[in-house]
Amino acid sequence: MSNNELDEMIKALSHPIRRDILNWLKQPDLYFADQEHPLSFGVCAGKIDQKTGLSQSTVSNHLAILQRAGFISSKKVGQWNFFSRNEAAVQAFLEQMQQQL
Amino acid sequence: MSNNELDEMIKALSHPIRRDILNWLKQPDLYFADQEHPLSFGVCAGKIDQKTGLSQSTVSNHLAILQRAGFISSKKVGQWNFFSRNEAAVQAFLEQMQQQL
Repeated sequence: MSNNELDEMIKALSHPIRRDILNWLKQPDLYFADQEHPLSFGVCAGKIDQKTGLSQSTVSNHLAILQRAGFISSKKVGQWNFFSRNEAAVQAFLEQMQQQL
Repeated sequence: MSNNELDEMIKALSHPIRRDILNWLKQPDLYFADQEHPLSFGVCAGKIDQKTGLSQSTVSNHLAILQRAGFISSKKVGQWNFFSRNEAAVQAFLEQMQQQL
């Protein structure tokens, strides 16, 4: 992991809403149990918007930052975008922080 | 630890030089063995400036950000400022990240 990649990951986590989203996506069956589509697709952007109570464009921006940092991936199914957490990236980040600090 | 405190800690770590400084201060006897003052005072700002190769004002700004976030403390002895790492704050931060993510 380069310093630039790590910087981008750290910046992605510097907003509490983005940490919340990442945490919710850890247990989608706990936080998004009412989603109609299968949770195996990931969590629909609209459900994440709802849960944050923020506008679609604001949440879309937060999701883009998390995705650019590698913490989440998206999958388009029909007209919907589904997001899932990249557990390996989260764990690699935590290990890197343990080592660097 | 409040979300605001955590945000400030994360932002403090979003620059590689600040992560380096924190890491050097973990083992001052390894990185600053040539300091004339006792390392028990901490590491003199001037030695940190030298090691980064950056200007005094730039490094002073990085140190202030680390100090505001609680990661380091300073101690004034005579005309010198000495910095030390707050190990408890670093460990509390790492635990909080493990929990929140």
